[in-house]
Amino acid sequence: MSSTWGERIKISVFGGSHTEAIGVTLDGIPAGVHIDFDKLLLQMKRRAPGQDETATPRKESDTPEILCGIIENVTTGEPITAIIRNKNQHSKDYEALRFTPRPGHADYTAHVKYGGKNDIRGGGHFSGRLTAPIVFAGAVCRQMLEARGITIGAHVGSVGKVHDEAFDTVNVGAECLNRLNKEYFPVINLKAKEKMYSEIRLASDKGDSIGGTVECAVVGVEAGAGEPMFGGVENKLASIMYGIPAVKGVEFGAGFGLSEMLGSEGNDAFRFDETGKVKTVTNNVGGILGGITTGMPVVFRVAFKPTPSVSVKQETVNLKTRENVEIEIKGRHDPCIVPRAAPVVEAAAAIAIADMLAIEGKLI
Amino acid sequence: MSSTWGERIKISVFGGSHTEAIGVTLDGIPAGVHIDFDKLLLQMKRRAPGQDETATPRKESDTPEILCGIIENVTTGEPITAIIRNKNQHSKDYEALRFTPRPGHADYTAHVKYGGKNDIRGGGHFSGRLTAPIVFAGAVCRQMLEARGITIGAHVGSVGKVHDEAFDTVNVGAECLNRLNKEYFPVINLKAKEKMYSEIRLASDKGDSIGGTVECAVVGVEAGAGEPMFGGVENKLASIMYGIPAVKGVEFGAGFGLSEMLGSEGNDAFRFDETGKVKTVTNNVGGILGGITTGMPVVFRVAFKPTPSVSVKQETVNLKTRENVEIEIKGRHDPCIVPRAAPVVEAAAAIAIADMLAIEGKLI
Amino acid sequence: MSSTWGERIKISVFGGSHTEAIGVTLDGIPAGVHIDFDKLLLQMKRRAPGQDETATPRKESDTPEILCGIIENVTTGEPITAIIRNKNQHSKDYEALRFTPRPGHADYTAHVKYGGKNDIRGGGHFSGRLTAPIVFAGAVCRQMLEARGITIGAHVGSVGKVHDEAFDTVNVGAECLNRLNKEYFPVINLKAKEKMYSEIRLASDKGDSIGGTVECAVVGVEAGAGEPMFGGVENKLASIMYGIPAVKGVEFGAGFGLSEMLGSEGNDAFRFDETGKVKTVTNNVGGILGGITTGMPVVFRVAFKPTPSVSVKQETVNLKTRENVEIEIKGRHDPCIVPRAAPVVEAAAAIAIADMLAIEGKLI
Amino acid sequence: MSSTWGERIKISVFGGSHTEAIGVTLDGIPAGVHIDFDKLLLQMKRRAPGQDETATPRKESDTPEILCGIIENVTTGEPITAIIRNKNQHSKDYEALRFTPRPGHADYTAHVKYGGKNDIRGGGHFSGRLTAPIVFAGAVCRQMLEARGITIGAHVGSVGKVHDEAFDTVNVGAECLNRLNKEYFPVINLKAKEKMYSEIRLASDKGDSIGGTVECAVVGVEAGAGEPMFGGVENKLASIMYGIPAVKGVEFGAGFGLSEMLGSEGNDAFRFDETGKVKTVTNNVGGILGGITTGMPVVFRVAFKPTPSVSVKQETVNLKTRENVEIEIKGRHDPCIVPRAAPVVEAAAAIAIADMLAIEGKLI
Repeated sequence: MSSTWGERIKISVFGGSHTEAIGVTLDGIPAGVHIDFDKLLLQMKRRAPGQDETATPRKESDTPEILCGIIENVTTGEPITAIIRNKNQHSKDYEALRFTPRPGHADYTAHVKYGGKNDIRGGGHFSGRLTAPIVFAGAVCRQMLEARGITIGAHVGSVGKVHDEAFDTVNVGAECLNRLNKEYFPVINLKAKEKMYSEIRLASDKGDSIGGTVECAVVGVEAGAGEPMFGGVENKLASIMYGIPAVKGVEFGAGFGLSEMLGSEGNDAFRFDETGKVKTVTNNVGGILGGITTGMPVVFRVAFKPTPSVSVKQETVNLKTRENVEIEIKGRHDPCIVPRAAPVVEAAAAIAIADMLAIEGKLI
Repeated sequence: MSSTWGERIKISVFGGSHTEAIGVTLDGIPAGVHIDFDKLLLQMKRRAPGQDETATPRKESDTPEILCGIIENVTTGEPITAIIRNKNQHSKDYEALRFTPRPGHADYTAHVKYGGKNDIRGGGHFSGRLTAPIVFAGAVCRQMLEARGITIGAHVGSVGKVHDEAFDTVNVGAECLNRLNKEYFPVINLKAKEKMYSEIRLASDKGDSIGGTVECAVVGVEAGAGEPMFGGVENKLASIMYGIPAVKGVEFGAGFGLSEMLGSEGNDAFRFDETGKVKTVTNNVGGILGGITTGMPVVFRVAFKPTPSVSVKQETVNLKTRENVEIEIKGRHDPCIVPRAAPVVEAAAAIAIADMLAIEGKLI
Repeated sequence: MSSTWGERIKISVFGGSHTEAIGVTLDGIPAGVHIDFDKLLLQMKRRAPGQDETATPRKESDTPEILCGIIENVTTGEPITAIIRNKNQHSKDYEALRFTPRPGHADYTAHVKYGGKNDIRGGGHFSGRLTAPIVFAGAVCRQMLEARGITIGAHVGSVGKVHDEAFDTVNVGAECLNRLNKEYFPVINLKAKEKMYSEIRLASDKGDSIGGTVECAVVGVEAGAGEPMFGGVENKLASIMYGIPAVKGVEFGAGFGLSEMLGSEGNDAFRFDETGKVKTVTNNVGGILGGITTGMPVVFRVAFKPTPSVSVKQETVNLKTRENVEIEIKGRHDPCIVPRAAPVVEAAAAIAIADMLAIEGKLI
Repeated sequence: MSSTWGERIKISVFGGSHTEAIGVTLDGIPAGVHIDFDKLLLQMKRRAPGQDETATPRKESDTPEILCGIIENVTTGEPITAIIRNKNQHSKDYEALRFTPRPGHADYTAHVKYGGKNDIRGGGHFSGRLTAPIVFAGAVCRQMLEARGITIGAHVGSVGKVHDEAFDTVNVGAECLNRLNKEYFPVINLKAKEKMYSEIRLASDKGDSIGGTVECAVVGVEAGAGEPMFGGVENKLASIMYGIPAVKGVEFGAGFGLSEMLGSEGNDAFRFDETGKVKTVTNNVGGILGGITTGMPVVFRVAFKPTPSVSVKQETVNLKTRENVEIEIKGRHDPCIVPRAAPVVEAAAAIAIADMLAIEGKLI
């Protein structure tokens, strides 16, 4: 149990890859918020599979059905529940795998935790498909944040060893982010994108997959949001980000880079800007000091491991016969999940930031 | 508000650098646990300042006073509250800083959040001193875990660009960890330690500070602990780690390294070992798949930014006169916080793992 | 926001009287629990409207659709989500009431809270219809409890001033409860039922309604469940019971009656029974001491106010014209909600007891 | 574990009757709140024992020591921790009772829950002494509420069968409450007080004790506070009230009385008052509809069972020898706890109302 997140903006995610439906209940959204469904569906589409060669060809419309909480595009203050029917199911593909856990998947750990009684079809509740409800909930939160001048955008920071330009953590603005947060494979530097495509194709051609990072920025959050110690912006963002399958690292600002710096290098000097606002000259802390926002862009990076479903032969165990065996995974998989992960990272960030503002009483 | 953490093992941390006392209430510890106070005080001492040249010369005994929950070294099942009196206070050092926030500290963000009414003495509730109660609570949890065959140890993974040997994520064992978790400046390779000392001295001589990383391992946790999505081991560990001041990055297993791998490289193959236990041949995921433990060592790395208190002149703002000004920070500071952070990371891990087991009903 | 309840067994209720669907996500149920759907549907039916003259003639099948978490009648360990489509809607009945809040309903308070933007159709999220998802979740929990020898049953304790026989709080057993918890209008003494029917008919004939109480007993809970102070059995049961619309009082054991007793009368003496088990000779505390179960039957009473929808003319305000006005409520209403409330009280008790046992690690 | 309560205003209570100290951490109080310690100490004194013949002669000064969170009478926004040293301890009185649980106390249930390893001295964590920290926390919250025009007061509603006049639930005002909330034995009608004293004396003379009720009112809460379903004002108030030892019933407004009414009697008609504010003509619902405040006085009653420590011989069990035995309880006890409970009920109400307002973002 733990598919819920949030304090004042709460999500409760349900469903599995091959259940009747997946969905989410989003609670805490004030009454009277107008939802632009075109914008919302754009976000769902950015995450949906089958958009180009970097992703699984599995086609899913991923159209959410609103069960409650929104009447004629306006929120009612009640919990909002949306479901997405699972249509394109190949349940038979999976039964053979019940006792031969796929390396890199949650098959083995779920088997142990649930005594072999869990839903293994498509990874069940551990499937990446469960990010669709997160994107739905994030899209609602994002629209509220936009109305408060807060913009969120992410780009594919790297694929394998190919890196996109990094965000300018001091100057990144809404314009840049509003371009990125509408694209399917968002990058800052288009040349990097071409090289990334090559990397992905190279892996894909071998039946392999490749990892990468997503870098995300949130601009427009005023100084003073977040709480000390365990309620900090970093705690909250990290805690929700690790709810996205395949995430193995999260760092803020210069992150691990800061561990190599001297204090005199790492410290961000304060300075009044021309409008009389307090800014920092650099932004190594990614807009967060003591868990609380400085008013500068909040910037963080999320590391994704490569999709574990690769078609090369792999060693595993047969939990029934208790023998070491080999496994070949067939089916349709994403050679690189990172482009589809960008809108999920944005959505999770939107939920976390909205919750933080709601906690501060700044969302009503 | 947010100085509490945990679901079934809960800590509530209170106090500030210069208040009467700091302390912690630790709730959820079963009755009848025998506490070895020598072991507990050793952990407190590892974190305490003034132990060698890498740390602030401020001497503090940091002896906890148990107010309740333990009678004659045995827990009663009630909340355990321990306080540590603040003795060695130089409150006057700080009043001058009320309107000139120190770069890299939480002074500015706390000022905004609390409307300038917060306790600024020594950083108040944001002070690194608040890690002492965490170490206390962790020491209690650790002893319970040890009784269940779980061992936690950390080492200084790096200081600046000088790296210690990394953990062998497959074979790291209790013996190694039990050596590390008793030392003041724990490293795997003693030669690395010498180089780290040089780095720290170099920074210290210039009145500067330096960052670093702590690598931590937990062995003996059985497969199946942790929960899916937002209740995973990574979510919980990251969420508590970011409660330690100066943490800016957390990664699990190969972490960001995984983002550069192919699936065929990154996947950890399963294999029965000679005793018939399921193991993975490699451990790139740091012992966690789908948020749930695999039974392999849980390994993660935490990035610490350099101590922000450096004696070089720095730019900041005067929030009263609203002018850009310069600041020179005097007083006694840690040129490198990382050695003292190792026991804190271990303690936080102990609390998180204990909570996870308590949730599973495996701690009673 | 607050339509979630529970710590380790969590429910998240969604929907409104006239939304597309209402439903619930029930999280924390272990994998491998076999669900008897006939038993489950029986509970749904006991609560459903239209069963006899004491209830609204509105017919609703209330058949839950399982979206996830149960495959072939067995739980998978994932969140269980069930929805019930709303079919029989007369939305037009309500729009006229937007600015003339019905006395005794949540119309006015919801209007203030949500700035008039809430869903007013049928009371929206405040509708008694939201108890259907509670009954669903309770029916799942109840089956788990039954497998552990715990039985829950309730009866209509009173309608107006007509009282049923009260439970024998010392000797009430599973047999009695298992009869009650299958009936539509459960009473201990059938003669009381007849008188209650008369009372209801009397009110109904005048277009009026009448209140009553439900008395509930839980047997088979071992001594030692529950937690001190705010985590006690009473705190938990009361906190979920007040989530049922129209509840205005909850008391345990002799309840308010205890306030009139001497200590020598009120104290329940301990005594070993013939099997060597500790029992109490009386059970004035309703099976709970210090928030923790004694092993005796847990007994409590819940007071329901009369259904506020009565057809007599009532005074109210027009929030738009800001005039005092009169209102006549038409439509189909329950003259007495109490019989239908009995299975809801049982269900809520089942959820609370299951959560408590899960917290103790006794449900897995 | 469960000695914490609250969402945005959180208390964490610790200690036992005979531990070094008892105390509370109160988190979520905004920075800059001025605390009047005379007022605070008055509340502590109202609850303290030894004030007149109705209470135990045990003298305790109950002066809280502030460890952190308040500097020079002003809150800093950090957690506030206060402790009260336990001085007047007669630990020897209790050891004999380890295996002979006192009827009506939590001795037996705690013994089962904690496997006999709990602190039994004076009831340990289950002692009524733990209400002192609640009164402290409540006194802080109350001062914040007063600054927002909210007044809380309670009176001894009844002792045994002797009843005080009840609150006029429509017209009760701050003046009346401000008189009651300063008194030791608050009643509305002084004649009732005399009769109550007689009742208590009668019980006391026989070495017996007697129960009673506390009726509490909160005025000045605007309409719209509280949340639907499980987050309602009733759920919250009941859930904290049952944290006070000896509470066995809680009812709101006409409470159980409503269960005997017709809808036409029970419904509170709405009407604009002369100032254009919406009021209800009666207030049977105790100021709460659908869990949300109506703006009318919030009124509720709490039932206290008689103090279980009576000097008459009682039956109990010897858990060691497993024999039925008799017990005589010596020592100093309250013949009637109800007068001392009034400030505790007020304090718990203050915490709950403050939390609710903080949730609404109306406390900052």
